[in-house]
Amino acid sequence: MTAGAAGLAAEPAGPGQSTGPVRPVRVGLIGAGRIGASHAAILARRVATVELAGVADAVPAAASRLAAQLGVKAFGSPAELIGSDEVEAVVIAASSTAHCELIVAAAGAGKAIFCEKPMSMTLEEADRALAAAADVPLQVGFNRRFDAGFAAARHVVATGGVGTPQLLRSLTRDPGLANPGAVPPWTIFTQTLIHDFDTLLWFNPDAEVVEVYATADALVAPEYKSAGLLDTAVTVLTFDNGARAVAEASFSATYGYDVRAEVFGSAGMVTVGDQAASSLTHFGPDGRRVNTVRGDVELFLDAYTAEFAEFANAVRAGREPAVTGRDARRALAVALACVESVTTNRPVTL
Amino acid sequence: MTAGAAGLAAEPAGPGQSTGPVRPVRVGLIGAGRIGASHAAILARRVATVELAGVADAVPAAASRLAAQLGVKAFGSPAELIGSDEVEAVVIAASSTAHCELIVAAAGAGKAIFCEKPMSMTLEEADRALAAAADVPLQVGFNRRFDAGFAAARHVVATGGVGTPQLLRSLTRDPGLANPGAVPPWTIFTQTLIHDFDTLLWFNPDAEVVEVYATADALVAPEYKSAGLLDTAVTVLTFDNGARAVAEASFSATYGYDVRAEVFGSAGMVTVGDQAASSLTHFGPDGRRVNTVRGDVELFLDAYTAEFAEFANAVRAGREPAVTGRDARRALAVALACVESVTTNRPVTL
Amino acid sequence: MTAGAAGLAAEPAGPGQSTGPVRPVRVGLIGAGRIGASHAAILARRVATVELAGVADAVPAAASRLAAQLGVKAFGSPAELIGSDEVEAVVIAASSTAHCELIVAAAGAGKAIFCEKPMSMTLEEADRALAAAADVPLQVGFNRRFDAGFAAARHVVATGGVGTPQLLRSLTRDPGLANPGAVPPWTIFTQTLIHDFDTLLWFNPDAEVVEVYATADALVAPEYKSAGLLDTAVTVLTFDNGARAVAEASFSATYGYDVRAEVFGSAGMVTVGDQAASSLTHFGPDGRRVNTVRGDVELFLDAYTAEFAEFANAVRAGREPAVTGRDARRALAVALACVESVTTNRPVTL
Amino acid sequence: MTAGAAGLAAEPAGPGQSTGPVRPVRVGLIGAGRIGASHAAILARRVATVELAGVADAVPAAASRLAAQLGVKAFGSPAELIGSDEVEAVVIAASSTAHCELIVAAAGAGKAIFCEKPMSMTLEEADRALAAAADVPLQVGFNRRFDAGFAAARHVVATGGVGTPQLLRSLTRDPGLANPGAVPPWTIFTQTLIHDFDTLLWFNPDAEVVEVYATADALVAPEYKSAGLLDTAVTVLTFDNGARAVAEASFSATYGYDVRAEVFGSAGMVTVGDQAASSLTHFGPDGRRVNTVRGDVELFLDAYTAEFAEFANAVRAGREPAVTGRDARRALAVALACVESVTTNRPVTL
Repeated sequence: MTAGAAGLAAEPAGPGQSTGPVRPVRVGLIGAGRIGASHAAILARRVATVELAGVADAVPAAASRLAAQLGVKAFGSPAELIGSDEVEAVVIAASSTAHCELIVAAAGAGKAIFCEKPMSMTLEEADRALAAAADVPLQVGFNRRFDAGFAAARHVVATGGVGTPQLLRSLTRDPGLANPGAVPPWTIFTQTLIHDFDTLLWFNPDAEVVEVYATADALVAPEYKSAGLLDTAVTVLTFDNGARAVAEASFSATYGYDVRAEVFGSAGMVTVGDQAASSLTHFGPDGRRVNTVRGDVELFLDAYTAEFAEFANAVRAGREPAVTGRDARRALAVALACVESVTTNRPVTL
Repeated sequence: MTAGAAGLAAEPAGPGQSTGPVRPVRVGLIGAGRIGASHAAILARRVATVELAGVADAVPAAASRLAAQLGVKAFGSPAELIGSDEVEAVVIAASSTAHCELIVAAAGAGKAIFCEKPMSMTLEEADRALAAAADVPLQVGFNRRFDAGFAAARHVVATGGVGTPQLLRSLTRDPGLANPGAVPPWTIFTQTLIHDFDTLLWFNPDAEVVEVYATADALVAPEYKSAGLLDTAVTVLTFDNGARAVAEASFSATYGYDVRAEVFGSAGMVTVGDQAASSLTHFGPDGRRVNTVRGDVELFLDAYTAEFAEFANAVRAGREPAVTGRDARRALAVALACVESVTTNRPVTL
Repeated sequence: MTAGAAGLAAEPAGPGQSTGPVRPVRVGLIGAGRIGASHAAILARRVATVELAGVADAVPAAASRLAAQLGVKAFGSPAELIGSDEVEAVVIAASSTAHCELIVAAAGAGKAIFCEKPMSMTLEEADRALAAAADVPLQVGFNRRFDAGFAAARHVVATGGVGTPQLLRSLTRDPGLANPGAVPPWTIFTQTLIHDFDTLLWFNPDAEVVEVYATADALVAPEYKSAGLLDTAVTVLTFDNGARAVAEASFSATYGYDVRAEVFGSAGMVTVGDQAASSLTHFGPDGRRVNTVRGDVELFLDAYTAEFAEFANAVRAGREPAVTGRDARRALAVALACVESVTTNRPVTL
Repeated sequence: MTAGAAGLAAEPAGPGQSTGPVRPVRVGLIGAGRIGASHAAILARRVATVELAGVADAVPAAASRLAAQLGVKAFGSPAELIGSDEVEAVVIAASSTAHCELIVAAAGAGKAIFCEKPMSMTLEEADRALAAAADVPLQVGFNRRFDAGFAAARHVVATGGVGTPQLLRSLTRDPGLANPGAVPPWTIFTQTLIHDFDTLLWFNPDAEVVEVYATADALVAPEYKSAGLLDTAVTVLTFDNGARAVAEASFSATYGYDVRAEVFGSAGMVTVGDQAASSLTHFGPDGRRVNTVRGDVELFLDAYTAEFAEFANAVRAGREPAVTGRDARRALAVALACVESVTTNRPVTL
């Protein structure tokens, strides 16, 4: 079940209340790489409240290829897509370094904006993006919030089901580091653990991070350590309500894509995250076996679908989406403090 | 993950292969009751390859109400919907007793047909429906086949992962019998266990049922036993490859909607079916707790979505859908043999 | 945890209440085969309230070998052991066909008796054993009752936690049929499923079995079918409170020793039985894997230990043990009705 | 299953090899508090290779009371017990501050020694105890090593099943802090997390801890923070093979006694630890529920039993036990470094 399932059941209005058909939101997608292509397929086939109007990429041939596969229009450039009347909303899945400029441009054109994480590379960029997008819907791609399990955990925490959070955990383990040479330094904090930081902030509502300790290493690809690539990291966050949180990441999970979280508090605990590919269990001479999910799209397909449905709903309702640019800025601040902690080998105060 | 997830990943065609956009299938839905309304919402919001053209019901006001909620057209009658040029395909979610006639009419109008289970009430009706629909796509609503776990189990079985099936199990436990007085006699076999019979036949490929034993009772609502309503049943199927299968059903599962299956064979076992509402586990003074799903739509939301996606794909490809009218006839034959077994308190040979 | 764990915690008496040391019960074991040797090792090393005084076997050399391994006395024959003053209580793990005579002899000598299941081969033998042992403690080896999970399930059922039982299940799957030629006909009912019948009777307190249907086959070793050996069986029990129970068995579980049970009732359900060898889960390229237990002694080591502790306690307290000869007779009656049902291919009334 | 189960199966010697009876080791227990009383009951009733010769306590009345309950001798003082010819081996479950002196005294009397953790309060004490006990068996009570799951995990790690360890985790959550005022400062590190440190060292063989970061707080009983009592702690260990380990503890687990561990490496992962009280699952209107264990004796009853069986075996075999005083010293060094890290709010190099 996705978080959207409840919505489906709840939505049908009562007799006499004519809600009318919802006109799909015409979305233009920028970025034809791995995650862009995945987003495009989801937008085109799984979200009936969205209509994929077209795609663009800094490399026009990449946009053309993806557009042809999906039978949609290829825009000549991101700027052309942003400027087009055929597009009401922009989904940004381009390179992270381009996010801030694209947000500013899209906001300038009055488009609603969905931007993949991280929203920006620096806090200055974050502030610029926030200022530019003050008057348009801006949602950031912290997709885990739309996973049924994570959403249920947050609901339990927010309604007091674990009491005051005291110990939290969030982890991300990726099945593989295809091309270590291409990964920028600090990626493990700003691209990967930023998901976990958002989760931990979301799971400890009304608390702020006051101190961060981080340690990291290149254990998977040690030959890239001198280039600054770190593939294994542990971080400890101290909140102003006394709670401590641990976020961990690795780029070498041989068993699949592993994302889990845990909130332990004064009245109980919730855990969330399951590596099982389905409810199937296979018993044989080697014991009891469950297939594990292999990638983010497989694990979070329903969550990706639900976050785009939320975006479409927010656009149509003219309201702020569930995950904001301010959320993105908070998570980035933690990630950057981790970078400083690794550099100085000291806890860093925020 | 749904069975559709793999499809999503697999689908993008290679470079140079322009697949083009798929024109959504214009579907008309007949039946505005509980499951009809659920199907309509799924067709309207979750399946981008389908366009819900409108709805009809034997009671026009019911159709109007549902149509208004979803912002689609209300046809004046099922016949009007079937005859309309705006409709390429018909989804039948009307009363079971009307299924056969609606199939015959829709096939006569050249429409592709998706019919909820049971396809018919008798084998004679089944033969009539099959004959009428010989030249149009006809899919029956055995939705469990589209659940990721059930599909994975079938794949393991079909590829030899459990060896020769020897002991099988399938069960359905429904959380509640809202209105026992309105349930026709033998419902537990022809409406509920028919799902399990299809599952068991599907999980034991190339084998035929040769004998059936069934026992049933009214334990939930004993006051309706005299009216023929049975709410608790156990059946044993003997296959021509020696395998035995047990199918069980009850209408009183206080803990939610429970659908599970198990295939034990000469080389191993698979089990499938999970009552968990999500990956959340909640720990407190009462121990470790997992919320359970409460209904078929909640448990099988992704499966329903996937079966309609399959239907749309089959219609566009002009091929036979994955679940056929012949499958429906086979499951019905087992259900009717169970009725005879209960009546005679003897094993019944097929 | 075993059922005995609670006992350990509960046992220490209050201040001033001198319970004194418990003199271990001097036990003689009859039967030096596989299960006898296992029982002897458990009695010698794991039950401090028992002292293994010696062993006997119909084949004296077998007794000598086992006795030497454990450093205990070898009696020259079962009769000599039964007659010895060094023995207060007899544990019978001999061939099933000898059980009745050994019970009669041991009871005649005034010994307390623990007898492996089945207590007897026929109801007449059962009555003879019961009459003979009227004045001595007589416990039968339904060890599952002492498993922590099964005991907890029974407690939940007995205290109303599932309401009125409506659908029950118990199954036994053994990892292998080492020597099919040596297995007597009907073994699957009188030796294997008799455990499940006891479980089902125990889990549906105050109800009696009124009808039995059984079907069985030789799917694992078809070449022995003509000799009457059946290795796969499904049985359905109908109780006088309307509940239906399914008991299943197979002799070919490639994945280990699998014993599970389920009680579904008007107010909920309990399931019990776990194939996991420990709490270890291993994640690797093939997914998530748990080692499974391979045999009855591995699965039920704590339960075997606890049943002998109960026996010693009952002997010292001079009270009836928790599992009686009458329990054994009830389970046997169901097993024999199953044999008749398979023979006649009809449900059999008890 | 306990780690002892495998031992039971493996132990019976082959034909002709007369192992003879093992004379139980006569053990004297020092310490009649909560854990001493529990150990005494286990030694008296569950370990057939041990004979509990008597008990002593710094408070003679406490010893008398416990001795009376178990029907064994009460020694007048620990010194009297240590000096007695009736005692071959001493189990020390006295106050931690007395451990070192008792070890020195028992070793001086030539007794074999089992000492609860921590073996000592300082590294100087540890060195003194090690020197004194150089010629007698000395085992320390890191009972988790004898839990079936932990033992299996260690076996997988040691045989390469996860590759090189990269990220480890161990946690202890205790259900309650009965009397916070009585808990010495730093208890969470030297008494509780010392178990986790031993586990982590054991799970990362051949590696040494080179740096430690710890953060801790009084979240459960903040009123005792000024007295130095910390009830919530997170620590990060960096090993010389690059692995990072997180150990966490809390004294307020409302859901029971929670001990888990995880080893993630270059080739896979193992997880271990289960809060389930048994294999029972209970389904009802509130969902699916599993009872959780409530205390260390309940969770580790089999492990405690197995560690005493190992001690008896080591004593009889005249060999070093499986958990040594050197292991205790290593874990203590980590705990003391954590204290320093909390005090200085800096990572501490070892």
